[in-house]
Amino acid sequence: MRPSGRASDQIRDVTIERGVAPQAEGSCLVSFGRTRVLCTASVETSLPPWRRGQGLGWVTAEYGMLPRATGSRTRREATAGKQSGRTQEIQRLIGRSLRAVIDMQALGENQVILDCDVLEADGGTRTASITGAFVALSEAIFWMKERSLLKGDPIRDHVAAVSCGVYRGTPVLDLDYLEDSEADTDANFVLTGSGKFVEIQGTAEAEPFSAQELAELIGLAEKGIAELVDLQRAVLGAS
Amino acid sequence: MRPSGRASDQIRDVTIERGVAPQAEGSCLVSFGRTRVLCTASVETSLPPWRRGQGLGWVTAEYGMLPRATGSRTRREATAGKQSGRTQEIQRLIGRSLRAVIDMQALGENQVILDCDVLEADGGTRTASITGAFVALSEAIFWMKERSLLKGDPIRDHVAAVSCGVYRGTPVLDLDYLEDSEADTDANFVLTGSGKFVEIQGTAEAEPFSAQELAELIGLAEKGIAELVDLQRAVLGAS
Amino acid sequence: MRPSGRASDQIRDVTIERGVAPQAEGSCLVSFGRTRVLCTASVETSLPPWRRGQGLGWVTAEYGMLPRATGSRTRREATAGKQSGRTQEIQRLIGRSLRAVIDMQALGENQVILDCDVLEADGGTRTASITGAFVALSEAIFWMKERSLLKGDPIRDHVAAVSCGVYRGTPVLDLDYLEDSEADTDANFVLTGSGKFVEIQGTAEAEPFSAQELAELIGLAEKGIAELVDLQRAVLGAS
Amino acid sequence: MRPSGRASDQIRDVTIERGVAPQAEGSCLVSFGRTRVLCTASVETSLPPWRRGQGLGWVTAEYGMLPRATGSRTRREATAGKQSGRTQEIQRLIGRSLRAVIDMQALGENQVILDCDVLEADGGTRTASITGAFVALSEAIFWMKERSLLKGDPIRDHVAAVSCGVYRGTPVLDLDYLEDSEADTDANFVLTGSGKFVEIQGTAEAEPFSAQELAELIGLAEKGIAELVDLQRAVLGAS
Amino acid sequence: MRPSGRASDQIRDVTIERGVAPQAEGSCLVSFGRTRVLCTASVETSLPPWRRGQGLGWVTAEYGMLPRATGSRTRREATAGKQSGRTQEIQRLIGRSLRAVIDMQALGENQVILDCDVLEADGGTRTASITGAFVALSEAIFWMKERSLLKGDPIRDHVAAVSCGVYRGTPVLDLDYLEDSEADTDANFVLTGSGKFVEIQGTAEAEPFSAQELAELIGLAEKGIAELVDLQRAVLGAS
Amino acid sequence: MRPSGRASDQIRDVTIERGVAPQAEGSCLVSFGRTRVLCTASVETSLPPWRRGQGLGWVTAEYGMLPRATGSRTRREATAGKQSGRTQEIQRLIGRSLRAVIDMQALGENQVILDCDVLEADGGTRTASITGAFVALSEAIFWMKERSLLKGDPIRDHVAAVSCGVYRGTPVLDLDYLEDSEADTDANFVLTGSGKFVEIQGTAEAEPFSAQELAELIGLAEKGIAELVDLQRAVLGAS
Repeated sequence: MRPSGRASDQIRDVTIERGVAPQAEGSCLVSFGRTRVLCTASVETSLPPWRRGQGLGWVTAEYGMLPRATGSRTRREATAGKQSGRTQEIQRLIGRSLRAVIDMQALGENQVILDCDVLEADGGTRTASITGAFVALSEAIFWMKERSLLKGDPIRDHVAAVSCGVYRGTPVLDLDYLEDSEADTDANFVLTGSGKFVEIQGTAEAEPFSAQELAELIGLAEKGIAELVDLQRAVLGAS
Repeated sequence: MRPSGRASDQIRDVTIERGVAPQAEGSCLVSFGRTRVLCTASVETSLPPWRRGQGLGWVTAEYGMLPRATGSRTRREATAGKQSGRTQEIQRLIGRSLRAVIDMQALGENQVILDCDVLEADGGTRTASITGAFVALSEAIFWMKERSLLKGDPIRDHVAAVSCGVYRGTPVLDLDYLEDSEADTDANFVLTGSGKFVEIQGTAEAEPFSAQELAELIGLAEKGIAELVDLQRAVLGAS
Repeated sequence: MRPSGRASDQIRDVTIERGVAPQAEGSCLVSFGRTRVLCTASVETSLPPWRRGQGLGWVTAEYGMLPRATGSRTRREATAGKQSGRTQEIQRLIGRSLRAVIDMQALGENQVILDCDVLEADGGTRTASITGAFVALSEAIFWMKERSLLKGDPIRDHVAAVSCGVYRGTPVLDLDYLEDSEADTDANFVLTGSGKFVEIQGTAEAEPFSAQELAELIGLAEKGIAELVDLQRAVLGAS
Repeated sequence: MRPSGRASDQIRDVTIERGVAPQAEGSCLVSFGRTRVLCTASVETSLPPWRRGQGLGWVTAEYGMLPRATGSRTRREATAGKQSGRTQEIQRLIGRSLRAVIDMQALGENQVILDCDVLEADGGTRTASITGAFVALSEAIFWMKERSLLKGDPIRDHVAAVSCGVYRGTPVLDLDYLEDSEADTDANFVLTGSGKFVEIQGTAEAEPFSAQELAELIGLAEKGIAELVDLQRAVLGAS
Repeated sequence: MRPSGRASDQIRDVTIERGVAPQAEGSCLVSFGRTRVLCTASVETSLPPWRRGQGLGWVTAEYGMLPRATGSRTRREATAGKQSGRTQEIQRLIGRSLRAVIDMQALGENQVILDCDVLEADGGTRTASITGAFVALSEAIFWMKERSLLKGDPIRDHVAAVSCGVYRGTPVLDLDYLEDSEADTDANFVLTGSGKFVEIQGTAEAEPFSAQELAELIGLAEKGIAELVDLQRAVLGAS
Repeated sequence: MRPSGRASDQIRDVTIERGVAPQAEGSCLVSFGRTRVLCTASVETSLPPWRRGQGLGWVTAEYGMLPRATGSRTRREATAGKQSGRTQEIQRLIGRSLRAVIDMQALGENQVILDCDVLEADGGTRTASITGAFVALSEAIFWMKERSLLKGDPIRDHVAAVSCGVYRGTPVLDLDYLEDSEADTDANFVLTGSGKFVEIQGTAEAEPFSAQELAELIGLAEKGIAELVDLQRAVLGAS
């Protein structure tokens, strides 16, 4: 029995509210239960130096967490003077995930920077970030299309993410904080709209897991991400 | 004529929504027109080392801005590896302003940290932060009172802040970003509920200002802050 | 009664010795009583990148304090690895104050950097720095004039600064360290030679101050700065 | 056909030379083909502060690369002033992998720090590091056993790692640099001696991969790691 | 012929003015020609952690240079965020040199920190710093003696320093900046009052030097330092 | 009697193994007894900005130490976030020593970076680094010659280094760690193949040393370096 009463293959209530940052070229507020992440997309016409002059665009991401997104206050990284290893690991994952579905030639020599800032953290902030960042990125691409900044349609597929884990011996979908802090295994999956894998990261927190358990987690992730992609489609279709 | 059509002594629509960060001991979302700041208060039972063993509490503040709070993306301070001089100047101002109305003996050996994170910036983020932080701090003090963590009532008075400036030759109240970027003079005032001055910071951006103009700015600030304190009272009374 | 025996509207003995740093384009040693600051002006023909190509010059300042300028040793900022928030706040103030009286077009695409290094600190180091930096800047501008580096006369007015405060209930002019550490209110004023305000920064250290007290502090500052400007004129006229 | 002529399920020549750092409590030089990593284990009787007083030990890892381990010189991280995100990600992975097979109670309040320094890099440095670090850690644990520093046998199982990937459409085992830089998918697997999963990290570099491809990569990893564990056993048995 | 017209074995005019930093426990302004260094000594009753509880004192030094001590402005190290390698090398040298003549047992568990700040640089700043720092340290030790903070007389001998070099083929004593920037060889010598060597650092800037030249430089240094020690004695005797 | 049983003028067994880093343009592993340093030379066709456009090349060095090169683990500088003063001092010494024997005009506008990484430290790591770096640099220059990247023969002479010291009252050659930690005086000498001095650095660790002792140390260094240069010649002749 999960603390939230959810079925083992049930994701939390997920909502995506578009256009929440009126000064950004794309934005949304994504919620997975109590976890809330503000995702903004910024279009820049300058590329990082190493990327220039190849006729290709670039998509990158940064991740942050407000100090009181958590149950006890987390030290501000700007005060600490650097981003933690965890933050860097997450923002590299978000960037890779989005780049996997973008046609860089169609994007032209433009850069889109995704900022994912966690307003409230209750588990699954990185997977919520990826799922929301895709919507903010899509908005920014609409914005570029209207201004004829593109060389084609850069969106090759959807991308979304969810976590799964083995909680008290049972594989479950979309861990919240309570489950996550107790889970034997924690795995994050990033899949495309067509059901292919972009990223899989599984870690045995306590006990190493078997090939059988891994197969079950994969099945749960496929189901959950299909639902998230449907939601993305509904939200973006409404524009 | 002001770009917003406001009268010269008219503040923007100001709202304060309490309890927006459920994991924090106090919080509010304060809006001055389009400027929106999320203020949270964190109660800690440990003091900074230099403050220990004196029977006194401490109140401090940190300030941040989401990258897309602004019209073009602002670099994340955690990536830059340090807080800018401007950020440090603002957070020191917020801290000083709040400490001016708190009885540190009554607070006991506890610390309250105020985090002011700007979700959208349209001028006046530091004065909105002070005005909102007082509400978050008050909530945190209610929370401490319920848990008998206090040695008395630490709130000696209200504190709120507003900016004034000389815009196209006319002293005006509560500059928005459009006015601020063009103003000859920009001044920030922090006053108590009883109308006394905690802080005054006036800077001639273009032309030095006269003693007469200074007197007019002071008058506008007194009017505006009285209105803000009324709003704080209404919002806190509703608890 | 002030610890120094001065009248409430009396500034300390102020001296400005020119040409103390023979390798600099401008320099002076300014003393307000025991407070001594070495001010140097460096002329550079290169501008910061963001300022280039606009036909305008730039004036900026840096501030430092020798470790034993103070009663107990202060940690060297170069060892700490960064300038403190206080240092940055002060050097931004010095820079803004000087820029308020400089015609950037007349300066041409040149930069003048003012370095204010405190040899001994007894209160009022930032106001002494501004008052002295104006003299060093003036010397550097003479130096540039002789070499025909200017497009006109960039000095539009004098600028000087003084602190005032409420000490044991009485508004007094030019706080020394003993007074400053005990004052209820501490205010810094930067005014031009023609008596206009460039900057006003007042902070209630203990008790918030009234509008009446503020008016008295303003009056004291006007008197003190007029005297400082007379001294600047005498010192610069002697060149 | 692989550039090296290896079969798709064939790992490179792997050797592990023990005792190469005579001043360390444990050490080995592990080679996967041309990739060579020097692994040392340092026993410390002090724990990190957050770990003290619980009767538990700690195992952690640091990773580095000599500047000319690579085809063109890589900037030294000590000169850059920080470890890259990639370095932090790798050293966290090494630490987690080793902790998964260690009984922290049996280790007692001791810490073992594994340093993995890449002398030559030809792909698979993180998986070679894990495989070698286990041997260095085992040596250090023998060393502790001889000195009666343990509360039991802390080694619960072996742990080793290998990479797999989809190279020109074919799933292959143990990518070298040439294959890695061209592979569509790159996955790292960490498994125990009993064939359970400690970590799985798969990333689609170019094309997202299918569930079928993922299953084949898993099969290759299981085969390769079984061979690596056999080698670890042989090398450690010879002690 | 030297640019200054000095004989090859002639040092510049050297003066040492005591007591220039009234808030410090010891201080002097040392001048070697145009090179001027402000040396202060700070007595602290706390030791660095690694030095505590051994009944021994500690002497250390820090070195800095004002931005306009030089012909063109030098970037402030506090702004750069760190001390340069050159600064660290110099301050380690000053500290080592002073410690060589101090009896740490007699000093008791006290620390003396010497700050050497260059007001004007014309070659030989490190050797002037050592020569002056000894005087400031001696003053601080008088100050400690008066307060009975010592366990004996910690000054075992004098210490002073001078540079020598091969300038246009001729070994010369006490290089100024003009000579230094052209010299083939630059050597710094630190000797005690009794003529023993504490430190010798010789570097071939252009051409490697012969054993014969080295012997001549040693002779010059012995002569120059004897004169400096005489001056130190005269200055300190006048106390 | 020396702990190692060596005669006072006897260096340790020294070996230099070439070509140990196959991806570098030059490399060797140099051993002085147990001290082992991996030296690599990297050829870059880009110069540091301040060196460009003068028709001259540049040679520079970086130094590092693996954490377990030492008896107890040394903190990794990349983790500490900066190179220690000691590291910077050493790498500046290595760079200066090599530049003293290189004709920068003949090198053309190329840069060679020497990396000296200590695998095991038993005293004399800086002198071993210089001795080995010369061999790696020579290899890199052969490599450049084969590719016609040079404007002449840049090697003007050999360069090698050794330490000497006063151990229990006797001047001895090539201190190992045991001797070094106890020596009264520690001196490093860098000489050319023709017996001229490039650098001499002598420090009294405990007792200041006499002119007589200095002369004896110089004699030992001359003998030892002659042997090292012979070894360099033998090793390089074998190419």
